[in-house]
Amino acid sequence: MTPPAHARRNEKSREAIIAAAFELCAERGFAATTIEAIAARAGVGKQTIYRWWGSKAEVLIEGVRIHRDASAGFPDTGDIRADMATQTGNVMRLFHTEFGAIWRGLIAAAQTEEAAAEGVRRILRVSIDEGVARLERARELGQLRAGLDPELAIELLYGPIYHTWLLRTRPVDEHYMTEVLAALGPALFTEPTAG
Amino acid sequence: MTPPAHARRNEKSREAIIAAAFELCAERGFAATTIEAIAARAGVGKQTIYRWWGSKAEVLIEGVRIHRDASAGFPDTGDIRADMATQTGNVMRLFHTEFGAIWRGLIAAAQTEEAAAEGVRRILRVSIDEGVARLERARELGQLRAGLDPELAIELLYGPIYHTWLLRTRPVDEHYMTEVLAALGPALFTEPTAG
Repeated sequence: MTPPAHARRNEKSREAIIAAAFELCAERGFAATTIEAIAARAGVGKQTIYRWWGSKAEVLIEGVRIHRDASAGFPDTGDIRADMATQTGNVMRLFHTEFGAIWRGLIAAAQTEEAAAEGVRRILRVSIDEGVARLERARELGQLRAGLDPELAIELLYGPIYHTWLLRTRPVDEHYMTEVLAALGPALFTEPTAG
Repeated sequence: MTPPAHARRNEKSREAIIAAAFELCAERGFAATTIEAIAARAGVGKQTIYRWWGSKAEVLIEGVRIHRDASAGFPDTGDIRADMATQTGNVMRLFHTEFGAIWRGLIAAAQTEEAAAEGVRRILRVSIDEGVARLERARELGQLRAGLDPELAIELLYGPIYHTWLLRTRPVDEHYMTEVLAALGPALFTEPTAG
């Protein structure tokens, strides 16, 4: 069934607004991006934006969530170590795209603006819940260290990645991911049994 | 030997400038703090500030370093697990003071300003080097897991703390520190031998 014409128009407007917000944020940074500029670039009125979102942070947060969902889900091949390597590798690659610059801007804004902080928390909640679900399946296969809180496990894994990326102490690359996962192994996983 | 009068005057001016920068940053946030306002609050001319520092970020960075050195060094009682608990506890308490708000502001600025990023890196370098030296002494006592890179170990420990603090996903408190240290134990340390 084709959705009614007004629903398709709404969907097109939402996409145009999110794309405009991303472009502007990548060009000018989060602080200098305004709702007026987003509306002008998307070819809609400001009121159209405010019908769906309360602030520029909320527009960007929806965009970030869409990108994140498209490329940084948790795979499940049955091998938790391999799947975590795949997933953190995907996140790392996302950090090096336009998405990374925008996500940085939102996290910077979250240090002082509650709306941005709430948005960052909402996005992370989706990732953390997915990660926890993946770790719970690993637990059923005996791959998770006994007694480990899966939410804490996600923080132990993502903590060093965000630390290094946000504090810009060294490059977050394939080599770093491999190092982190190998060093964390004894805290997170049981030894793989011989196959 | 008493330092000459001009050296004492310089020292007093430097302290007044750093204190003014901290106060203003705590009152208005990093972005709204200007060199003009710092100079006015400290009762010095702008040129006095520029004689010693290149930017407001550099003034704040020196202040952060002084606070950090005063209260977040790595103790050495011979027990690495206890010392890491003490040190991360001290950092956590520092995060909950005015220092925490200023450190947040600098890290937020570091996302887009290279001078702030360089300052954050310089401060962290001091902490990481101290932490590495403490871990090397633990290694000599056989307390560090074999093959673990001590710099990576510091990132594994501080990563979750900064992740949770900067992304504001949950309170960084005594309970959280205890959880992180306990969960990381098998990745970082050897089992304590019976005494």
